[in-house]
Amino acid sequence: MKNIEVCLSPELIHLFELKGKTVVVVDILRATSCMTTAFAHDIQSMRPVATLDECKALKNEGYFIAAERGGEKVEGFDIGNSPFSYMEPSLKGEKVAVTTTNGTLAITKSVSANDVLIGSFLNIKAIAQKVKDLGQDLIIHCAGWKGSVNAEDTLFAGALIDLLLDTHKISADDASVAYAVYQQYKGDMLAYVTQSSHAQRLKAFGIMKDIEFCLEIDKYDVVPYLKDGNIIS
Amino acid sequence: MKNIEVCLSPELIHLFELKGKTVVVVDILRATSCMTTAFAHDIQSMRPVATLDECKALKNEGYFIAAERGGEKVEGFDIGNSPFSYMEPSLKGEKVAVTTTNGTLAITKSVSANDVLIGSFLNIKAIAQKVKDLGQDLIIHCAGWKGSVNAEDTLFAGALIDLLLDTHKISADDASVAYAVYQQYKGDMLAYVTQSSHAQRLKAFGIMKDIEFCLEIDKYDVVPYLKDGNIIS
Repeated sequence: MKNIEVCLSPELIHLFELKGKTVVVVDILRATSCMTTAFAHDIQSMRPVATLDECKALKNEGYFIAAERGGEKVEGFDIGNSPFSYMEPSLKGEKVAVTTTNGTLAITKSVSANDVLIGSFLNIKAIAQKVKDLGQDLIIHCAGWKGSVNAEDTLFAGALIDLLLDTHKISADDASVAYAVYQQYKGDMLAYVTQSSHAQRLKAFGIMKDIEFCLEIDKYDVVPYLKDGNIIS
Repeated sequence: MKNIEVCLSPELIHLFELKGKTVVVVDILRATSCMTTAFAHDIQSMRPVATLDECKALKNEGYFIAAERGGEKVEGFDIGNSPFSYMEPSLKGEKVAVTTTNGTLAITKSVSANDVLIGSFLNIKAIAQKVKDLGQDLIIHCAGWKGSVNAEDTLFAGALIDLLLDTHKISADDASVAYAVYQQYKGDMLAYVTQSSHAQRLKAFGIMKDIEFCLEIDKYDVVPYLKDGNIIS
């Protein structure tokens, strides 16, 4: 059996040995849900960058540019952080540069892993199958909210663990904590997540339909992954 | 209603505003369980220090000295990190200087709070009552294991939340995560904790009876707290 650990916040990732392992990065609300949706709608590639300036500069290199800060789309960018905006036919076959509050940081902090996959509820079964195929120890890296542990990413970690227990085992307390959260709330994940801090923040922007969409399970079969600084699938 | 947040690791404490709040520090296995036991057996005061050298130097100032690293008592010190060692009649009325792998760090990182209380399952009801009496927002600060989130401190956080829901409310996802762990495992806390990483480490030292003792609920009525760098009660 291979091991599963869960990094509950990017602020803790330095405690983990990533080399030789698979990392699944998750930012349910909404960065990795957006990325999953984007590749399900045939976007060519996505480039996660840390800053707004870096992102803006890529406009001149033929990228569509996407930016979110504090839950809202940033002015002057083509795309915000709603999964629905990635369904636009105009984005098909295009490259997108993206910067978000939490998700892109978790991705860039995961680069020393053997394989970095982009996970969300939307592609959870495809991710689980890929993790099994890779056959390596797993770290689920939760993006959290500005360093803090959040409900929805922890819940996803527990849900992914549940799909892996025939090939992987819980090998650290952070994973048993995440699994407990999933076991406790699997019967009503939407209620648990909508009462979470970040969902409450997002509800203020009137995007309850984004939240409901991001909790749909196994909607897409894509497995976006990081290669040479770009996400492809 | 006052707020409850849970800091799941001392590596995350910089994300919290401690001023004006009550902090309950918890290191179930075993620092704060030892401290609770010590004050229940009339120790005069305990002084948490960061390093072995600092601790040793206090021997000449009339302190008994206690040190644990990696789960084991350090050679040349009077006391290790077993709660039973604090029941010795010879310690009654004495001062103890103490350094441990995780617990003392969590205490020293909490000093900017209004009130810093020392919590464990052994005094959980007394702690809950004190938190209510103080009437402030609460942060439960889990000591974890070398920066990582651990099972038993998270479980305690959830159990303490459960005792406070008439005066305090869960106000952050870290608290809802801890509460989920408690709800999931409250029926068999010993089984959950004995399978945890740290309990497995400790079992290698043959101290299962320490673990069982540290999970006894409401055994003592003391509320140790930090004052001017010393713990008293």
